[in-house]
Amino acid sequence: MKVIESDFQAWMGGIQARMEAALARLLPASHIASTRLHEAMRYASLEGGKRVRPLLAFGAGEVTQAMPERLEVAAVAVELIHAYSLVHDDLPCMDNDVLRRGKPTVHVEYNEATALLVGDALQSLAFQLLAEHRLADDPRLQLEMVRTLAVAAGSRGMAGGQQIDLESTGAALSLPELEFMHIHKTGALIRAAVRLGADCGQGNADERQRLDRYAKAIGLAFQVVDDVLDHDASTATLGKTAGKDSKQGKATYVAALGLAPARQLADELRAEALAALDGLGGRARRLAQIADFIVLRKF
Amino acid sequence: MKVIESDFQAWMGGIQARMEAALARLLPASHIASTRLHEAMRYASLEGGKRVRPLLAFGAGEVTQAMPERLEVAAVAVELIHAYSLVHDDLPCMDNDVLRRGKPTVHVEYNEATALLVGDALQSLAFQLLAEHRLADDPRLQLEMVRTLAVAAGSRGMAGGQQIDLESTGAALSLPELEFMHIHKTGALIRAAVRLGADCGQGNADERQRLDRYAKAIGLAFQVVDDVLDHDASTATLGKTAGKDSKQGKATYVAALGLAPARQLADELRAEALAALDGLGGRARRLAQIADFIVLRKF
Repeated sequence: MKVIESDFQAWMGGIQARMEAALARLLPASHIASTRLHEAMRYASLEGGKRVRPLLAFGAGEVTQAMPERLEVAAVAVELIHAYSLVHDDLPCMDNDVLRRGKPTVHVEYNEATALLVGDALQSLAFQLLAEHRLADDPRLQLEMVRTLAVAAGSRGMAGGQQIDLESTGAALSLPELEFMHIHKTGALIRAAVRLGADCGQGNADERQRLDRYAKAIGLAFQVVDDVLDHDASTATLGKTAGKDSKQGKATYVAALGLAPARQLADELRAEALAALDGLGGRARRLAQIADFIVLRKF
Repeated sequence: MKVIESDFQAWMGGIQARMEAALARLLPASHIASTRLHEAMRYASLEGGKRVRPLLAFGAGEVTQAMPERLEVAAVAVELIHAYSLVHDDLPCMDNDVLRRGKPTVHVEYNEATALLVGDALQSLAFQLLAEHRLADDPRLQLEMVRTLAVAAGSRGMAGGQQIDLESTGAALSLPELEFMHIHKTGALIRAAVRLGADCGQGNADERQRLDRYAKAIGLAFQVVDDVLDHDASTATLGKTAGKDSKQGKATYVAALGLAPARQLADELRAEALAALDGLGGRARRLAQIADFIVLRKF
């Protein structure tokens, strides 16, 4: 297994810092009314996570030579959708989780009603940003970008996957069923991140197709690795409640396949993702490194 | 007081039927996975309400001579945002309401988690529709329409107003505070309905300004009348739990002003709305009738 290169660490750190600054700038300030809602929206979105989806958007943007100022806005929009989904997912009627990224979840820190509105308003803000900043030379392509994110977030994407997840709790899913769920629940937004990043630049049909194939593989790999880590890790390392999936009777790749085969599947998906990048040359270097980072990560 | 003209009743019935058909067509079919989510999204959106926001969009579209096929999509998008807000508003952590339009609310008919996802997915679908159908000759104007709806739905619009509403429960609001809350909570989406309807056609700056002035007045009138009706009516007539605002200690115009002055305020706002339409001629006839309908309605 390759070690993650230090120039990638520096690139990743740069994107993460850039995202933090962009989110801080693009989220409404906490002195604007409703102040408490804006404060909670910032609490839910800032200082959070590895920013995997933004990394993917920037990585795809390198392939299509997109302008960083455009990538930044597209990446923030995707990240806001992700942040909203975590806030709603943590609510008592869903996963009922009290800890996220080492901090109390939004409904614990504020209250349930505020957490509900935080998620709702983060979703609106994502579409507002995609519409109000110039992200493509052709405004028709930009409308297509709005559509891409909406479909990925909606009932035939992330929200649909969450519903299937809800209904499958306590049931033993077959591998195809599990895959169907994750293609929607996490895969759709990861694909959208890659596609929106690519759309900020000029990509030809072959490049777009390769990027999409990469995104599909890496989206699934991400979930398989998540399941493996959830099975392995302690609460301290994860910064969230560990082992909760199996405790809640949720279907996981570890439960469906066993631990070693799940690890092997993650490696195969990484190989598939890297194969999709063949022919894109050095411009796809960051995406290849992200694939390694996702599959080889320990947290 | 004028009686509502029968040709308006016919026009309104036509728009309502058209909206029902359009929603049925544009919502994902209930056999598409996730089937239960799609079924619940349809339950939340079909056979519902007076469709005031669509009526306003179509009324504004008559002023700017917009194509009905465009108005239909814009009106559906606004109505989906409205429908999502009702589903989330009815949840136990918000108003905890069990009855809506004479039917069990979504979380009662399905469950809380599904209701949460229904609202989330309806919001995504609204933006998807605004992006994927051609609504304006200039795609830049259409991006502006996406932005209009996102701002109206978000933290500086409807969601922000709901947060202020949450925080004000049990408190006595001054009239300006009450107005500030309603300008956001219901006013923003009503203004967006008028603006999106107008944007589907060709309006000059003066017309757009007049329409916006109309929308601001009618948005507030709508809420004042709602408060009066909630104070007056029985559960049977409203099709929802009546008197709940005062029971929950929510600030209302009736509480802030008294019943007769609240009724007078509604009449003044209607006059202001009608005055804003001066100079738009016969093309604004429907909007004038809607103003009458909103203020003179009994349910």
